[in-house]
Amino acid sequence: MAQKAFQDYYSDDFSHCYGCGRLNEHGLQIKSYWDGKESVAKYLPNEHHIAIPGFVYGGLIASLIDCHCTGTAAAASYQKEGRDMDTEPPLRFVTASIKVDYIAPTPLNVELEIRGKVVEIKGKKVVIEAKVLANNKTCAIGVVVAVRMPETMLSK
Amino acid sequence: MAQKAFQDYYSDDFSHCYGCGRLNEHGLQIKSYWDGKESVAKYLPNEHHIAIPGFVYGGLIASLIDCHCTGTAAAASYQKEGRDMDTEPPLRFVTASIKVDYIAPTPLNVELEIRGKVVEIKGKKVVIEAKVLANNKTCAIGVVVAVRMPETMLSK
Repeated sequence: MAQKAFQDYYSDDFSHCYGCGRLNEHGLQIKSYWDGKESVAKYLPNEHHIAIPGFVYGGLIASLIDCHCTGTAAAASYQKEGRDMDTEPPLRFVTASIKVDYIAPTPLNVELEIRGKVVEIKGKKVVIEAKVLANNKTCAIGVVVAVRMPETMLSK
Repeated sequence: MAQKAFQDYYSDDFSHCYGCGRLNEHGLQIKSYWDGKESVAKYLPNEHHIAIPGFVYGGLIASLIDCHCTGTAAAASYQKEGRDMDTEPPLRFVTASIKVDYIAPTPLNVELEIRGKVVEIKGKKVVIEAKVLANNKTCAIGVVVAVRMPETMLSK
């Protein structure tokens, strides 16, 4: 994709996250992009992200949904303000709550697609629905309530 | 603690989980125990489990709750059947859904305590409420719906 990922707009200070920080060499380093009105990220789990033989453990699924959705919340908020993601002030989000329903076992050794859709954006709160697909089959459905990061956390 | 952890009763085939498998050298290897009617696990996050500087990323919190609760579901089910965890047939659980509310930022460099409480146990379904504490302060509250692992997954 020619687009720059949402996470690649984060300043260095906000790029250490285990789920999506480009500077966390031990982390997942997920990258999220717009795909029309939805956001999409792709991730190939590692062999050690196993639950039981052949399947991905649920914590990884939740982590992928979490970081993809907070990134989507940021991107959608810039979009709502009619601003590019590299303009000031920065809009960063944290997760207030996450709910994940595991619909089907998620196979290992398959690139997962995480798709997000903004269902509410109001003030400092953004609600995103997400799904995780393997081989085009939905394995998990999530809802994330993301809230604007408090000033106290932004100004470290 | 003199008790054997719930996870240490899992057979080798079920001990590869990234969250709680004793055989996953890359994983979290959490260990859960009874503490009266509640279950408890302790975990010291690694430096790379960062969200933003000073705080733990939410995906780890969700992962800890997830594995601690499926372990608690198993232990509670053996208890309900009046059986020790090393008796046959094995009772293993998978997560049907997880909800986590992040109440307060979770500090890094602090051993976390994950406490679980069974709120419903009926047939193949166990519902567990969990909280994650840092320095005795609740940082996250979770609810996990765990269901008995299907025979097809047990008989690999």
